[in-house]
Order: sequence, then C-alpha cells, then structure tokens
Amino acid sequence: MHTVSEAAKIILNHALALGREKIPLNEALGRILGEDLVADRDFPPFDRVTMDGIAIRHEQFAQGRRNFAIKSIQAAGAPQQQLSDPAGCIEVMTGAMLPDGTDTVIQYEQLKIENSEATILAESVNFRQNIHFKGIDRKAKDCIVSKGKKMGPAEIATAATVGKSVLQVSRLPRTAIVSTGDELIGVDQTPLPHQIRSSNAFAIQALLQEQYGMKSKLFHYPDTREAIQAGLSEIFDSFDLVVLSGAVSEGKYDFVPQILQALGVEKCFHKVLQRPGKPFWFGALADKAVIFALPGNPVSAFMCACRYLLPFLSHSLSESGRGPETAVLMEKVTFNPALTYFLPVRLEFGAEGVLQAYPLPGHGSGDLANLNDADGFLELPLDSDVFLSGTAFPLHRYRN
Amino acid sequence: MHTVSEAAKIILNHALALGREKIPLNEALGRILGEDLVADRDFPPFDRVTMDGIAIRHEQFAQGRRNFAIKSIQAAGAPQQQLSDPAGCIEVMTGAMLPDGTDTVIQYEQLKIENSEATILAESVNFRQNIHFKGIDRKAKDCIVSKGKKMGPAEIATAATVGKSVLQVSRLPRTAIVSTGDELIGVDQTPLPHQIRSSNAFAIQALLQEQYGMKSKLFHYPDTREAIQAGLSEIFDSFDLVVLSGAVSEGKYDFVPQILQALGVEKCFHKVLQRPGKPFWFGALADKAVIFALPGNPVSAFMCACRYLLPFLSHSLSESGRGPETAVLMEKVTFNPALTYFLPVRLEFGAEGVLQAYPLPGHGSGDLANLNDADGFLELPLDSDVFLSGTAFPLHRYRN
Repeated sequence: MHTVSEAAKIILNHALALGREKIPLNEALGRILGEDLVADRDFPPFDRVTMDGIAIRHEQFAQGRRNFAIKSIQAAGAPQQQLSDPAGCIEVMTGAMLPDGTDTVIQYEQLKIENSEATILAESVNFRQNIHFKGIDRKAKDCIVSKGKKMGPAEIATAATVGKSVLQVSRLPRTAIVSTGDELIGVDQTPLPHQIRSSNAFAIQALLQEQYGMKSKLFHYPDTREAIQAGLSEIFDSFDLVVLSGAVSEGKYDFVPQILQALGVEKCFHKVLQRPGKPFWFGALADKAVIFALPGNPVSAFMCACRYLLPFLSHSLSESGRGPETAVLMEKVTFNPALTYFLPVRLEFGAEGVLQAYPLPGHGSGDLANLNDADGFLELPLDSDVFLSGTAFPLHRYRN
Repeated sequence: MHTVSEAAKIILNHALALGREKIPLNEALGRILGEDLVADRDFPPFDRVTMDGIAIRHEQFAQGRRNFAIKSIQAAGAPQQQLSDPAGCIEVMTGAMLPDGTDTVIQYEQLKIENSEATILAESVNFRQNIHFKGIDRKAKDCIVSKGKKMGPAEIATAATVGKSVLQVSRLPRTAIVSTGDELIGVDQTPLPHQIRSSNAFAIQALLQEQYGMKSKLFHYPDTREAIQAGLSEIFDSFDLVVLSGAVSEGKYDFVPQILQALGVEKCFHKVLQRPGKPFWFGALADKAVIFALPGNPVSAFMCACRYLLPFLSHSLSESGRGPETAVLMEKVTFNPALTYFLPVRLEFGAEGVLQAYPLPGHGSGDLANLNDADGFLELPLDSDVFLSGTAFPLHRYRN
C-alpha cells in the first residue's frame, strides 16, 4: 500500500496535457495564464505628475525664485505642453504628462495662488519631486505577469493596462463527477429511513468551481455492475477527468475497481496509508482520461479531493507553484494506527502572525457536519503516534 | 482628517440593508447564507455500518463463538434487515443500516468466509465497533451551519444533505463601478503618448466577483462636470452601491466631491491619514445608495477597495465575522510621514506556521505592476516611523 506522498507523486506524474485556449478578458478571473503579460510600453509611459499643483524648473527655485507666473494648465489626458519661459510655471494635475521644460512638481498645499501667480510657501523643494518617471516601474517588453499565474484582480487590471482584451489561458479539463450508491437520492427527494441524499458530487463540483472556475457535469448510477459499466464507458469518450465517489472498498457491491479495469483503465494504485480515505483508487485510461475513484464517505471523498485532486489540477493547468501552508497544532493529539492522519482543524491567526490550528476530530469519515466547523485539515505523518501542541504541520485549507 | 480606523468605522456604520433572496443550490457557492441550515433528521439518520464485513451480536463473541452462519446481506440503500438467529450473522456493507438484532461489525480483513460461514480471526472485537451511531454527529433540528456563513464546498454538501435545493441568501447590492478621467481609453484602443488604458474598474469588478460573486456594471465618464453629474444622477436611481475612481483630489478637474454633494450625497469624510489613498471620499445618499469615491491611482484605488469596500460588503451581507489576519514583517521598514502606511508584501509560510511578509514597496500609488508581485499589504500604524523585522502587523491579503 502506498504512503500519501507516494500516492501524490504518482498522481502528479499523470498530469493532463490540456493545452491552451483564448478567452475574453472579462472571463479570465481565476483562470491560469497561458502566456506572459508583457509591457506594451514603458510603465509609466511618460513622466507622470503625482500631485495636483504646479510644475517648475527647479534651478529657478534654487536661485531664489518663489513667485511663478502660471502660463497654462496641463490636464491628465491632454497632450504634453511646453514651458517656454523658465521663470514661469504650468499648473499640473495628477496623472498628467509633466510639461516639457519642467522637472519638479509642487503640490497645492504648499502654494498660494493669486492673480495667475503661484507663490511657493514650502521652505524646501526637492529636485524632481512628485513625478513618477517614465519606465521606472517596468520597461517596454518587460514581463509583468508570468504565465502560470492565476488571474486575480491585480492581474486583470494589468492585462487591461497592456491592452489584452483577449488572453491565452490553460484549457480546463472536461470533468465528469460520478456518484454511485443505491442509498443516495436527490436533493429534492424525501429519504426513506435507509436512504440519504447525495452530497459528494456537489461538494467536489463546488470545490473545482471555487478553485479553478471549472464547470463539471454530474452523473449518478445505481449500484449494479451493468449500470456503472455502461455509464462509464460512455463518459470516457468525452471527458478528460472523471471523479467517482463510492463503491471502491471491499464490499459485495463495490464494483468500481473491477469495472474500471474491465474498461481498460490502468490501475495506478488502490488504497493509501491514510485516514480517512484509505480505499482511494486512482488510474488512467491511456492518453484519454484520468480517473479518481474516491471513497464514498463524505469526509473521505472531500479530503481526497483537497489533498490529491486540487494539486493534480494545479499541475495539469501549469499553475506556477504555490508554496505549501503550515499551521501550528494547538492541542496534543494521539493517533496510533500506522496511517497518515488528516485531522480537521479550525484556524485562527495568533497575534504574532502564527496560524493556529485547533483540532476538531469529529466522528470520522461519515461526519459531514464537522467539515462545516473546520477550515482545513492538518496532515499528521504516519511515523508518529503523538503530535505535540506547538508543532507545525502541513495544512490543507479549504476555507479562506 | 480621519485615521484609517475612524474611516473604517464610519463606513461600517453605513452598511446597506440588503435583505434576502432565494436561489437554487447550484448557484449558492460564495453567497452568504441567509438562514440556518438545520438537520432535517439525525446525523447519521440510522446506525450506519462503517466497514464492509459482518454484523453480529457481541455477546455471542464474548461467550466464545467464532463461527457465524451468514443469514443474508444488508446492502447500503436497502431497508433494514433483522438477525433472528443470535448465533448467526448478516453480511453488511459500508453505508448500510445496521441490521436489527446486531450490535457489532467485524471487517472482512479479520474474517475467513467459506461455505456461507464467517470465522472471526481477530483476537479481540470491541462491543459496538465499526458503527457510526444514529444522531452522534448532530440531532434532528440542530443547526449545522449558521446563517451568515459564506457557502463553500462543505456547506454546499450539507445543504444538499438536508434537502435544501433552494436556499435563502443575502441579496447582493446592485453595484455600479464608475471611472472618470480623460486620460483613460478602452482596453482595445491604442493609447496616444498622453493616454493610458482603463484598469481600476476592471480590478474592482474582479475583486467583488472573486470575493462575493458580484456582477457589477461598469461606466465611464469624461472629465467634465456636466458629463459626470448627468451620468451619476441616472445611476443613483438603480444602484445600491456606487464605486468611483479618480477626480477626488485637489485638481482643477476633480469635480467628483462637488458633484456628489450637488446630487444630495451626504459627505461622510474626504481624505484619510493613509498612504496610498489619502484623497478617498466616502458618502451616502439617504437610504438609497452608498458611494465610495476612490482615488484614481491604481494602487490607491485597489488598496482602498481591499481595506474598506470588502469589509463594508461583508458587513452589509451579514457575513459572520472572519478573524483578522496578521503576518510578520521580515525586513525593517522606515516610513516617516504621519500616515498609516499600506505596505505591499509577498507572503510565504515559514516552517513554524508563521506567515512571513517580505516588503515590496514599489514605486508608489501608480505602480500597478508591483501589485502583481505582492500577495497583500500590511497596515503599518501611523504612530510609528520604524517597523522592525520580526514584528506582526495586520494583513490585508488579496491573493490566496
């Protein structure tokens, strides 16, 4: 049986080759950039005034001049003006081009203006002050955002600034989420005593939508070999990624591993040394699709999706590396089985910048309600039984 | 002039009364829950088998019995069976109801099964093991998720489980994002030397969409009093929240504050003791709309949106309190002006669970490119000039 890190490595080795597609900028939020965003010209593109006030030649101030005749106004969005008389000044607005023949800006707060003449009240004025100089942030052709970055609000703004109304991004995998289990009924139905409503498929769908803006399709099959086999064989033709939950364990009706192999899916592993989620099965169908067959218990399915499916997607989408997160365990925890333990935790920031993790062990892999109270889970390694308060462990956070 | 915390308090006091609306579950991701999610029955709803194997009466094992005749199979999703012969057993599947007349489950790994008889190989078997008992997680009518919570994947799963195909959530404000400035042109246009492409409106729109799934509408007006006034007076009739950027400072064409007051908007404050973003103007139009008039520089507008607009929305949507975040400054920073300093930082998790913030001061409020390298900003208080490495400060993170 594989360890968690072995299983994670095998999964990453089966990353999908998704390619890229072009999309309009207004659909790009959350997508992974497939090209560099390059400065189309210098940033800023001209010597830019950063305060409302007047622009002068500093040598005039240095020589003792305090009164400057206002020759004109340089507005933002207007072509560059010129100061012909070095003893004069031009009124300038934030965002405007610095007028030709000037080199220093003095803000209104340090001026008195009367009869078209500005008097400088400040005792000192620095040469070249209040100017954001052409090219100081970035030069034309510099890369501003590297491909692989997830498009957030700042990246959207940058794309707009460099004129990218259409962007190249990683294509998202066509994703099917399949649930099995005769005990499952629809959200709108009223369960009989032995039934429960379906929830795993909704949780995984929401997770993929939240993290990568993915729209996945849901399927449900009853617990018969024929139904599952017929359904899956159809799905494999039109999806890159198939996420199942349920029917992967040792039970009489746990047909999924056999059916997947009968359909030509290569088994990469079955079972991982972890709790919850030990029955997790993973395989690949040649170059066509990758199959995550998660356990059916809601906590198991959810944690496997967070721990394995999200990093797999990040890798398949060529997302640039996000650093791992850690949090400090705030209570001693004992866990004897020789398994990696995914411990649900509530997170809180300590005053000193420490992310604190308070254990919420819950009642095991069926305790869906407990996931609502937790914010993520710690990964407690299998080679220890006792985990001391004050120690940091890898964190998988599913709530920000 | 107000401090940052005074400004933030004034803004929260003007939270919008948005009310609630009903939406289908598949649109609920990221929305703020407007009702409690209540257990419709016990969680779990029956004594649930957690391992594939057999169910027995433990007293039989305790009395020395190791061989149990298999009487039937209890599948998941099937009505509860009954064990009539206490010396027998029933094969049970994960997720199934525990058969009536049994109290303990032994997994297949600890069994040998031949000729419809199961032999227990384990030396010890705990009374009531491998059963997830009815009601142990939550009792019927217990609140599982409280109103005010943001709907994440776990909450979506819980809503599905309790049968909420339609959910009550906080209504989102009808939001207009307005840019002004003659220097601004569209993303698709090629700028003349004195022009730049519009970006603030896109950044703010993306921020609101990412955080709260809001779809806001964009407007642009040229820098004339008439155009801005006519445009805004129309907008005020049909939007709850209006976010402007630009034309709020001291310049000749900074008409926005006057126009807002001419239109009957009550000024709550103009200018905050902060850098960047000092010219920030905030007001309210009776019970109709709230107006954020942000400075036009891209870093100023973005940071004001993160620092003030997002908490305002959280409060208006009755989102349950998220704890503040902190991060540890990793290099000494000096900042002399008597202003709160919003310092852009790159974030990294240290091995010990400490969130580390590396300063990326950039080139000021016009340095949009710098926001792409940073993950958030620290709020360095105005009453100090020197901020030592190793000290924790409030963090406003805009990238996870």
